[in-house]
Amino acid sequence: MTEIAESRTVVPNAVDLSIPMPLKFPTPPAVDAGPPLALRIGYDMQFEIRGPQPTAMLLMLYVQPEVAAQLDRPERLVVEPAGVEVQSFIDPFGNRCGRIVAPPGPLRLTYDAVFNGTYAPEPQPTPGALQHAAGDLPHDVLPFLLGSRYCEVDRLSAVAWDLFGKLPSGGERVLAINRWVFENIRFGYKLTRPNKTALDTYVERTGVCRDMMHLAITFCRALNIPARYATGYLGDIAADPDPTPMDFSAFYEVYLDGRWWPMDARHGKARVGRVPMARGRDATDVALITSFGRHHLTKFTVVTDEIGATQPTLIPSPPPLRLSA
Amino acid sequence: MTEIAESRTVVPNAVDLSIPMPLKFPTPPAVDAGPPLALRIGYDMQFEIRGPQPTAMLLMLYVQPEVAAQLDRPERLVVEPAGVEVQSFIDPFGNRCGRIVAPPGPLRLTYDAVFNGTYAPEPQPTPGALQHAAGDLPHDVLPFLLGSRYCEVDRLSAVAWDLFGKLPSGGERVLAINRWVFENIRFGYKLTRPNKTALDTYVERTGVCRDMMHLAITFCRALNIPARYATGYLGDIAADPDPTPMDFSAFYEVYLDGRWWPMDARHGKARVGRVPMARGRDATDVALITSFGRHHLTKFTVVTDEIGATQPTLIPSPPPLRLSA
Amino acid sequence: MTEIAESRTVVPNAVDLSIPMPLKFPTPPAVDAGPPLALRIGYDMQFEIRGPQPTAMLLMLYVQPEVAAQLDRPERLVVEPAGVEVQSFIDPFGNRCGRIVAPPGPLRLTYDAVFNGTYAPEPQPTPGALQHAAGDLPHDVLPFLLGSRYCEVDRLSAVAWDLFGKLPSGGERVLAINRWVFENIRFGYKLTRPNKTALDTYVERTGVCRDMMHLAITFCRALNIPARYATGYLGDIAADPDPTPMDFSAFYEVYLDGRWWPMDARHGKARVGRVPMARGRDATDVALITSFGRHHLTKFTVVTDEIGATQPTLIPSPPPLRLSA
Amino acid sequence: MTEIAESRTVVPNAVDLSIPMPLKFPTPPAVDAGPPLALRIGYDMQFEIRGPQPTAMLLMLYVQPEVAAQLDRPERLVVEPAGVEVQSFIDPFGNRCGRIVAPPGPLRLTYDAVFNGTYAPEPQPTPGALQHAAGDLPHDVLPFLLGSRYCEVDRLSAVAWDLFGKLPSGGERVLAINRWVFENIRFGYKLTRPNKTALDTYVERTGVCRDMMHLAITFCRALNIPARYATGYLGDIAADPDPTPMDFSAFYEVYLDGRWWPMDARHGKARVGRVPMARGRDATDVALITSFGRHHLTKFTVVTDEIGATQPTLIPSPPPLRLSA
Repeated sequence: MTEIAESRTVVPNAVDLSIPMPLKFPTPPAVDAGPPLALRIGYDMQFEIRGPQPTAMLLMLYVQPEVAAQLDRPERLVVEPAGVEVQSFIDPFGNRCGRIVAPPGPLRLTYDAVFNGTYAPEPQPTPGALQHAAGDLPHDVLPFLLGSRYCEVDRLSAVAWDLFGKLPSGGERVLAINRWVFENIRFGYKLTRPNKTALDTYVERTGVCRDMMHLAITFCRALNIPARYATGYLGDIAADPDPTPMDFSAFYEVYLDGRWWPMDARHGKARVGRVPMARGRDATDVALITSFGRHHLTKFTVVTDEIGATQPTLIPSPPPLRLSA
Repeated sequence: MTEIAESRTVVPNAVDLSIPMPLKFPTPPAVDAGPPLALRIGYDMQFEIRGPQPTAMLLMLYVQPEVAAQLDRPERLVVEPAGVEVQSFIDPFGNRCGRIVAPPGPLRLTYDAVFNGTYAPEPQPTPGALQHAAGDLPHDVLPFLLGSRYCEVDRLSAVAWDLFGKLPSGGERVLAINRWVFENIRFGYKLTRPNKTALDTYVERTGVCRDMMHLAITFCRALNIPARYATGYLGDIAADPDPTPMDFSAFYEVYLDGRWWPMDARHGKARVGRVPMARGRDATDVALITSFGRHHLTKFTVVTDEIGATQPTLIPSPPPLRLSA
Repeated sequence: MTEIAESRTVVPNAVDLSIPMPLKFPTPPAVDAGPPLALRIGYDMQFEIRGPQPTAMLLMLYVQPEVAAQLDRPERLVVEPAGVEVQSFIDPFGNRCGRIVAPPGPLRLTYDAVFNGTYAPEPQPTPGALQHAAGDLPHDVLPFLLGSRYCEVDRLSAVAWDLFGKLPSGGERVLAINRWVFENIRFGYKLTRPNKTALDTYVERTGVCRDMMHLAITFCRALNIPARYATGYLGDIAADPDPTPMDFSAFYEVYLDGRWWPMDARHGKARVGRVPMARGRDATDVALITSFGRHHLTKFTVVTDEIGATQPTLIPSPPPLRLSA
Repeated sequence: MTEIAESRTVVPNAVDLSIPMPLKFPTPPAVDAGPPLALRIGYDMQFEIRGPQPTAMLLMLYVQPEVAAQLDRPERLVVEPAGVEVQSFIDPFGNRCGRIVAPPGPLRLTYDAVFNGTYAPEPQPTPGALQHAAGDLPHDVLPFLLGSRYCEVDRLSAVAWDLFGKLPSGGERVLAINRWVFENIRFGYKLTRPNKTALDTYVERTGVCRDMMHLAITFCRALNIPARYATGYLGDIAADPDPTPMDFSAFYEVYLDGRWWPMDARHGKARVGRVPMARGRDATDVALITSFGRHHLTKFTVVTDEIGATQPTLIPSPPPLRLSA
């Protein structure tokens, strides 16, 4: 037996199939303009691979192919020891991925580039941004209406309609969802766990940015607004400095008015200087590193620094790492 | 904050990246031979669309593109009323999908074709079938190692290793998983619910075929064996007749020895005359119909009949459906 | 490690410990008056005990000791075969319980009595009914503030404060909770399962009366209002006749203004002719029958009939049951 | 609708109701003998009560009434400020409880006593210890077969029978359960959360002592062995010194052979010098402090020290606490 039909709660808009809407990849809108901003991005991650056999690792540590042209050089993930080959491929979500098979012993992954953006805050949907009827959505957007490991759309559907169902559809709902999560979920590094789902976050009202995005995504999908999870670099520009060490940052994207818009339920507002890396249905799809074997993380540094503020480069030359103990 | 690294329990095989293994789409192996089998397949589904506005519906009601050549004619989903256009597209999992926008009132979806197969049981992995190391898997197979809405790989990982971790990897583990689910989960149409997950099924020890496949898939993935959910037609050939009305049937596929193999934890053995329709991470991805609006199902008939046994055709000519009540 | 302290969300009232409030068992208030009502109550339950060994069964099939004086005779649970002794005891919640050890073969439990009540609807708290501060509650009421198997008070706490936290404490909150559950949870016999919790019911918005009471109880406790689960007989008096077979009925009780009040989130209003049987933290504590062995239920009839409306007695004399097949 | 009958998986023993077994409270068995051991026990807890209104607090900070006679003095919980009265009562589980209403400002709870025990390890059931049939259990033991907030007996029933169902009933099963939890659940202070249940612990294979006891209790109850949660003092006698600060310690008790036996799934063996404080169905029932208002814990010290080893007393005289800031 299979399920015949899944029926979703919806107040459908009138649709006109005679003009199917093609997928538009996010064209930088006019508001993106602003003074040029150069960001040094990169990381230095060091591991001890336990062995005794080689360990396969999947790496989602590149920027999104759409923004790679904004880098100052072809991006390159440097692996030490030098003989470890990186297989690169594009996954079904359009992310650039790497795969290595690391021998036992020390492993180092470094990356260094300059991203050329602007000081304009990232574009945000207006309250009037149009929500497309399901019949109008591009085909490749449809999967982002479905449930996923951490986003139990079916279970949070009634709650989503309770909280946001009386608002106008489209941008106003999305902005209200983002604000609700920002205001109601208390952030705390100790208030998460690997198996925390959107329902857990709703019930417990606590979490880290990953959990907040999952909750906002789930609310959006329950209201038939396509939403996807994303990761990236994010600096402190035009924001209060964060006392914790620099890290990657989760955000999410919603599909309105024929394009994807970045949203951030952790900070509750548009940010400056975000560099997108990977996207997928939820955090399951974009783990920075998935390791098929035992390893120990010995160093983890992320850099997202405005250039011009006399930042040192991430990796001094020459890197004096000794791979043989 | 994002998750740095997901580490999976694994006893990695030695890997040799110098010969990356290309993706092999399931080549019908030699054992597939057998006397020719002709199956009439199809369905007749009728709905009352409530309105007042048109309702978008996603339809996963075609056979898989790989087997479409085994049909006696180009496949066609007939929609009544006649003016409703079917947009057809291929989703990220390679499934053929349709999308319609149905006006309020009666809606009928019918399909009729003859599938040419053989009486040979579907191929099954041998106990010695090779499990690939994660470093060797084709890129498009990797997503089928991850968790999904109904397959909480992380949560059932310890249980999977307890139950099957001492067996040799590869075919023997897969066959043991399939047998365990077949023997330990009690089938019952009333023993499921839309939100039932693999963990629920493991704990409650009951479910329908969908639930059984989710549990087997989750065990496989936890043991680093790629597994995906699938739906299809399945007749009663070489099996005890099923007294319940004919329905679609769930199964799953595992990736071993460079190809995908069909598995069936509901019946516990290879079947004859399965016609695959759609596949994905779990049932979320392959709902036969996803409706974005209110409807009422008034008729649901599925046909999977051996030809030669004097079966009547599904749809007598001419179909006398009256669309205006 | 044990938990040091559980801190509950509360806006505490000023308390005065100098006059500790003694426990008042529900004194029938003045509003209970009304024309006399005689109800025939009872049941006929038949089982096949599988054996081969005797099966212990716990029975919560008596009326509450407080109302036993309103019966026309000392209550008696008749067990066939006749030699099976009923051990009777009072459990920690004040319920009268029975325990039998039934031999393999047929088992029959019958009960027949007349309950003398009134046509007055059961008393309900007024909106102004006082909620006691935790420091003022009688000691034996305190356990009914805690979580239990089906009432995850901690997990629904934020939701409860969201929904009802802005209302005045006491009767007004209780009445709003009861109305919310009555209006938002769709009743359906197929929409439950043995493991359904209050959180499941909140999320799924469906259930049977048991589920509705668990949700209302959980909301009450989260708001520091003591609440307990209860079962009883309930006829159709002054209510639309229920087309389903007569059954026992769940309700719940809240502690306000120095006494327990019956509440019914399934019917959303005060009822006439309820006869309380058992009460506890949740359904776990008041299963009508807990059987430590395999049995098959062959007959289940409950009677709650107004006398004077020419109802036949439940058990015609003499009962012609043949125990030997 | 209420649940008619809960049927439990059981292989019932033959029962003979003609000699109902009376409840025997744990008689110290012969093995309890050993050289005398004097333990200084006590605590010093300091809080800042936020106010502005007084805060009610329930305190389960006394030793169990059964062992109070082994103290060197009548036990006394000292509260500062001095005017705060402690209401003392016995709860339905036989625990001595206190209730205070604390004014805003600093609050201090101290306790100091000497417990006279022996160096004999606490008694443990032998593998042959008898498991009573449900029909034979004392009435007040029956509730400890049921599910509770953190012990989902129904959900772990199949797992329990899988893991332990082939062993002889009684002591052998209990010892196997205790060993399984001890060996399979990894202890870690960061690996718990307030809502972690026995099922979570089984799935995640991590937790603190509270979680381990919940899992062992749930397995026992699923196998029809009464089990209850308990807290107490526990020193380092005849054990490796624990580098973490002294704390209270959870354990559990099982009912076999006509008495309750202490079990410890965290340490996997009988301990010396345990002083029982409170017991209940699970941690819900025995929170050391339940506070109905906001407070801040500023100090938390527990002492469980062997006397003769030149331990200082807990509270130097005079305690120089200043209550006015």
